[in-house]
Amino acid sequence: MQLYKSLTVVGFLLTLVTCATAADKAAAFTNLDLAAANKLRERALADLSAYGLIESLTTEVGARPAGSPGDRAAIAWALREMQRLGFQNVRTMEVMVPHWVRGDAEFAVVAPWPQAMPTLALGGSVGTPPEGIEAEAVMVKDLESLKGLPEGAVKNRIVFFSNRMERTRDGSGYGRAVSVRAAGPSAAAALGALGIVIRSVGTSELRFAHTGALRYTAEAPRIPALAISNPDADALVRQFESGKSVRLRMTSSARELPQARSANVIGEVPGSDLASEIVILGAHLDSWDPGVGAIDDGAGVAIVMTVARLIQDLDRKPRRTLRVALFANEEFGTSGSRAYLDAQHGHVDRHVLGFEADFGAGPVWRLSSRVSPAQLPAVDQIYRALAPLKLARGGNEAAGGADLEGLAKLGMAVLSPDLDGTRYFDAHHTVNDTLAQVDPAALRQAVAAYAMSAWLGAQYPGDWERVTTPKASGR
Amino acid sequence: MQLYKSLTVVGFLLTLVTCATAADKAAAFTNLDLAAANKLRERALADLSAYGLIESLTTEVGARPAGSPGDRAAIAWALREMQRLGFQNVRTMEVMVPHWVRGDAEFAVVAPWPQAMPTLALGGSVGTPPEGIEAEAVMVKDLESLKGLPEGAVKNRIVFFSNRMERTRDGSGYGRAVSVRAAGPSAAAALGALGIVIRSVGTSELRFAHTGALRYTAEAPRIPALAISNPDADALVRQFESGKSVRLRMTSSARELPQARSANVIGEVPGSDLASEIVILGAHLDSWDPGVGAIDDGAGVAIVMTVARLIQDLDRKPRRTLRVALFANEEFGTSGSRAYLDAQHGHVDRHVLGFEADFGAGPVWRLSSRVSPAQLPAVDQIYRALAPLKLARGGNEAAGGADLEGLAKLGMAVLSPDLDGTRYFDAHHTVNDTLAQVDPAALRQAVAAYAMSAWLGAQYPGDWERVTTPKASGR
Repeated sequence: MQLYKSLTVVGFLLTLVTCATAADKAAAFTNLDLAAANKLRERALADLSAYGLIESLTTEVGARPAGSPGDRAAIAWALREMQRLGFQNVRTMEVMVPHWVRGDAEFAVVAPWPQAMPTLALGGSVGTPPEGIEAEAVMVKDLESLKGLPEGAVKNRIVFFSNRMERTRDGSGYGRAVSVRAAGPSAAAALGALGIVIRSVGTSELRFAHTGALRYTAEAPRIPALAISNPDADALVRQFESGKSVRLRMTSSARELPQARSANVIGEVPGSDLASEIVILGAHLDSWDPGVGAIDDGAGVAIVMTVARLIQDLDRKPRRTLRVALFANEEFGTSGSRAYLDAQHGHVDRHVLGFEADFGAGPVWRLSSRVSPAQLPAVDQIYRALAPLKLARGGNEAAGGADLEGLAKLGMAVLSPDLDGTRYFDAHHTVNDTLAQVDPAALRQAVAAYAMSAWLGAQYPGDWERVTTPKASGR
Repeated sequence: MQLYKSLTVVGFLLTLVTCATAADKAAAFTNLDLAAANKLRERALADLSAYGLIESLTTEVGARPAGSPGDRAAIAWALREMQRLGFQNVRTMEVMVPHWVRGDAEFAVVAPWPQAMPTLALGGSVGTPPEGIEAEAVMVKDLESLKGLPEGAVKNRIVFFSNRMERTRDGSGYGRAVSVRAAGPSAAAALGALGIVIRSVGTSELRFAHTGALRYTAEAPRIPALAISNPDADALVRQFESGKSVRLRMTSSARELPQARSANVIGEVPGSDLASEIVILGAHLDSWDPGVGAIDDGAGVAIVMTVARLIQDLDRKPRRTLRVALFANEEFGTSGSRAYLDAQHGHVDRHVLGFEADFGAGPVWRLSSRVSPAQLPAVDQIYRALAPLKLARGGNEAAGGADLEGLAKLGMAVLSPDLDGTRYFDAHHTVNDTLAQVDPAALRQAVAAYAMSAWLGAQYPGDWERVTTPKASGR
């Protein structure tokens, strides 16, 4: 009993020592920097300008898919707005982007019970012959069950993928469900299918179809691919479950045009003593075409621009340089961020810390990271500074988003104020991605979380270090 | 003081006498009938078949606008289902209906900021020339503000009506807002406008346009009319509010085909000692074409069919005959109910009581009526029998619905278990009118309210009497 007590006390003391050592590894933020972070929070929570930016972008530009007139209008809009906000080194970086045009699409059940259903072509899909494709159909749940079919089962058929995406806060449901959209067309084509239709990779019970990029493989013929909404997918499942033979018709005038010019748009809030180190704030300027891109990614654009402007408005310059990067064509191959990375000859390591905003309009519910283990205490300090925002503490496996993934893979540290994705996939990639989907209060909270963490990230007295730990697979 | 007390006592006694007299006017329901009403409630609240009927109608038939193949399929479906349910005297009553075809419609802002917006033609609208109509646009709130414009203000222009419908439980918001849809096209045409676009007469902030019938007058040219969703109307308002000149383009291939055959479908649960008196349960079989007509009016069809079947399943026959009438083409001119009325030579007065279900899938929140004042105590008795459903007590100005209005105007008493319309106009007349909009529990509650009141209405020991009080204007 005595022995046990002594051991407990020793263990307790060891714990104290360990904690102190870990805390020492991260140089503490100055009181001035913490006070400025609080000021940023107060200002962000009262600031209406992020909402105003989304309103302006969606009203004056609207849909801006890669290569479209809207894409070019968005670049002009971003240049104008960055200059208006007083950012430095405002510039474009030209990028060639694919130029896919959706055209019109129609989808109908021909038998047993004729019904037309609203549809969207998957991004990048080839079209059908003008008269469409009509064939018997086969229903499978997902790629796995497609593989399990007997040989020849889908030859000259249309394949319907019925799997339903799960609603989650962190987007993991999307990660699990989206493979059918990317890989379904070529997987079915390799087995002789004429076309595919998928249940939308989205969580809405409203009659909105959900688009998004497919990826054809080189080995299989390119076949047309459509998506239908959840309620229509349910209705189609009922047709299959009748036991009668199901016949479908699909028509699409989607087509690929020659590559087009687009651009990343970049602006900066220059740093002071560590100006050569870059804290990059990334979002993407393009959107899918059916909606006006309010939540994907007008919200991200507005968040990073507002964060930089709020920090610029402080009495002191940030130590490190804040770079706002609005990338071209995230949606259809991340052309912009890949071109950005290619252009960083010898400058990759200047990007010491990255933030990406590409998961809707908030609120932020968690702070995650991917930093060198020695810098975790710094993340803890930032997390504590954000306490009034009542966030959860995430792990150190943040993947960044699609646009900063390249820099992160090369060792850039990532801080991730995680946006709540519970309802994100209700409107994402649908015609319903409009300003009405943005909750102004949630957006302000998100700006506050990004602003505080970006500011503290820029002021950090230590070294963010290159990150060499294996990268977790993110969404 | 003594005098006052005496007068009070006399007054109190008089009140008692008056109440007793009023109550006496309504013969009391038998305990057996009240017990059967309770049994109906219990069974209805546990019955899944109304939902099953909507599922079947929307899956096997889907959209069924007047004159379409879906319309004919719906008639076949209703005959089959009425026979399956064991109704008597199942029959069709042929009706000629207009056959308007929507075709495709496109709407775009050309200037100042080009944007395409999803749109629906208003029901009955003429189309545009194939190249569309492009013109400067004028924004007005409603018909009143159109009248207030200076002469020539809309000549050769497109008129945008921006008024927003108010969300209400009883549908009164729709009643107030819908005039612009019905009368807007001819009102603008009379002033020289080339076309109109209206903010949808609906309450949804989702990007669904809302259709519904317009009414051209004989005096003005027929001009094309479109609707856009609330979020798009907001975006269009912002374009106007920029102060720049707004230019719009509209294209529609809507057209009128020759009249087509359709039919009312009728079935009965025959009465016993008062079999010649009819309690009519009305709903409509047609739907608008963009959705599959789950809430408008698959739900009403399912409610009245299930109510009749539940009453048929009781141990005793109802005293009066229950007639289920599924009317053709309510949406585009109430052809079916007008034909029904025309066919009642000398039989109008046999329709002693009417129930209409054409306001969604429940729940019922109120019991209203339009009965002879002497029969109000009977409505009170029915209301008390429905107490477990926790309804409010409505007034005696129930308008019935569009299909029973004709019979009601000729003196038929109406009982109205009022369906809750708070969210009805989110999906009504949009592509989003699907099975996913039906809450099975609310639907069961609605069936219970209709079943109890229809049963008691059929059993009423008194005489429902013809109603001669002036009719209130309803929705």
